[in-house]
Amino acid sequence: MDKRKRRIVVALGGNALGNTLPEQMKAVKITSRSIVDLIEDGNEVVITHGNGPQVGMINNAMAALSREDPNQPNTPLSVCVAMSQAYIGYDLQNAMREELKNRGLNIPVTTMITQVRVLEDDPAFAHPNKPIGHFMTKDQADLAAEKYGYVMAEDAGRGYRRMVASPKPYEIVEIDAIRTLVNAGDVVIACGGGGIPVALRGNHLKGQSAVIDKDFVSAKLARDLDADDLIILTAVEKVSLRFGKPDEQVLDHMSIAEAKSYIAAGEFAPGSMLPKVEAAIDFAASAPGRRALITLLEKAKDGIAGKTGTVISD
Amino acid sequence: MDKRKRRIVVALGGNALGNTLPEQMKAVKITSRSIVDLIEDGNEVVITHGNGPQVGMINNAMAALSREDPNQPNTPLSVCVAMSQAYIGYDLQNAMREELKNRGLNIPVTTMITQVRVLEDDPAFAHPNKPIGHFMTKDQADLAAEKYGYVMAEDAGRGYRRMVASPKPYEIVEIDAIRTLVNAGDVVIACGGGGIPVALRGNHLKGQSAVIDKDFVSAKLARDLDADDLIILTAVEKVSLRFGKPDEQVLDHMSIAEAKSYIAAGEFAPGSMLPKVEAAIDFAASAPGRRALITLLEKAKDGIAGKTGTVISD
Repeated sequence: MDKRKRRIVVALGGNALGNTLPEQMKAVKITSRSIVDLIEDGNEVVITHGNGPQVGMINNAMAALSREDPNQPNTPLSVCVAMSQAYIGYDLQNAMREELKNRGLNIPVTTMITQVRVLEDDPAFAHPNKPIGHFMTKDQADLAAEKYGYVMAEDAGRGYRRMVASPKPYEIVEIDAIRTLVNAGDVVIACGGGGIPVALRGNHLKGQSAVIDKDFVSAKLARDLDADDLIILTAVEKVSLRFGKPDEQVLDHMSIAEAKSYIAAGEFAPGSMLPKVEAAIDFAASAPGRRALITLLEKAKDGIAGKTGTVISD
Repeated sequence: MDKRKRRIVVALGGNALGNTLPEQMKAVKITSRSIVDLIEDGNEVVITHGNGPQVGMINNAMAALSREDPNQPNTPLSVCVAMSQAYIGYDLQNAMREELKNRGLNIPVTTMITQVRVLEDDPAFAHPNKPIGHFMTKDQADLAAEKYGYVMAEDAGRGYRRMVASPKPYEIVEIDAIRTLVNAGDVVIACGGGGIPVALRGNHLKGQSAVIDKDFVSAKLARDLDADDLIILTAVEKVSLRFGKPDEQVLDHMSIAEAKSYIAAGEFAPGSMLPKVEAAIDFAASAPGRRALITLLEKAKDGIAGKTGTVISD
């Protein structure tokens, strides 16, 4: 592995950040240790993260307030995503700052409120299939559909949930400011929760009832920043073929062509490993030398050193 | 008035941003027009804002969720302040971006999650006197005091409210990143709601149950960024002596010495004009040539041109 400074985008899962604040405060400490390992080795790091449990919680809180106080109108999902960026970013930037200081590194860490443009004709808007918020009874679901125009559907046999679209990221609105800070050597936390979904109408950016996949946004961000590596952190050390079967085969490396053929063969679960491999391909295929890595948080440093994880590159 | 580019910190009141999201979306449009007037004239602008109604609303929402879901612990005030920075910043950066584009200006606008250090031995912590959140009955107040250790007090004869300390800002934690973006020519929204109050313990920044006065933080930010002007926007065009009396006298200018003597004479109401004049003095007295301006939002441009408002300078 060469020793020159690499620019790395690290994509954290929202589930890895815990379901409550006390869980989050513990999780960000562990996360920061692994990420600062990369920085201590001389790499530049940009952090993105998911927000599944957190935006659900915030959405529930705002809905609870609306029930108690009729003067408080319903809060759009885009605003809840914005709030989740601060809810997570505040703890994460703090833990990162502390871990850097503990190792004698004085590097500024900043969370940027990030909007991500999607296209209103994205086919995903015709098929809202991403569940958010809490479970409801049939009656509650019918009321929510009538009152707010929500698309409701049964989810996992546990009741009804609101379904929103998951369109592709088209443009990271604040990319110039992100680039300025990354080029200045700062650690930037951006595109939290996939970014606040907005659509362009004239010069106006209109919030969308959607959630953008954080791995796709991370690939886009890594391309825009001309990163060397994209690390997609997940719950397994390596990607497998025939996952969970007796003849499961773990992969150290996939070429772009191999990864595409595995996808075509249905090897990766939708909503789970599939979008991660798709995002990895998107980045690795975008320019020569770009490398995507899928692994566990605690293996990030070894993965970048070529010792573990699954690398997607040509 | 000279025509060279000035660096201006603009402090917006939280009340000027509306009490609900629809009100906020209208308010940020009007606000952005006045601020972009300054940018169109060639000035650099950094925006700070209050968050009184907004952090109260978020605090109420998180409390409502805790009542409905016993798994959700109480959310600390510092986290609510963080969320309010995103809640306001998202709308404000969007409206700023749109107004800039409408005038053919392509200037990045970014909201930065900002922590502000306070000192744990700040005397304000011994006298929590800033009311936040909604009104409660005596019984509810006693319960909140017992359950969460809140300081509760009667407020304005309308019931009981939680009281928190309002310590002085000591250090803006993210100042380096803010400076980098301001120097790059970006419009930065920072220190929202006075900043997330934190205290340093070793290398750890611990969130505080406090709110920092946004005008004091704005003066600190203006000093740290070596700004030329600090504009404190308020509900009157000019500061007055004997405010509301038959012989009221509006002021076009106060020297530092005059401003201090008016304060000593009790001319300015605590919690209202007094902290604004104190923040104005803090900035204007910090280096030669620095100028503070107190005026209405819609008079900001005329004020900077020397046509209206009350200027505090030597």
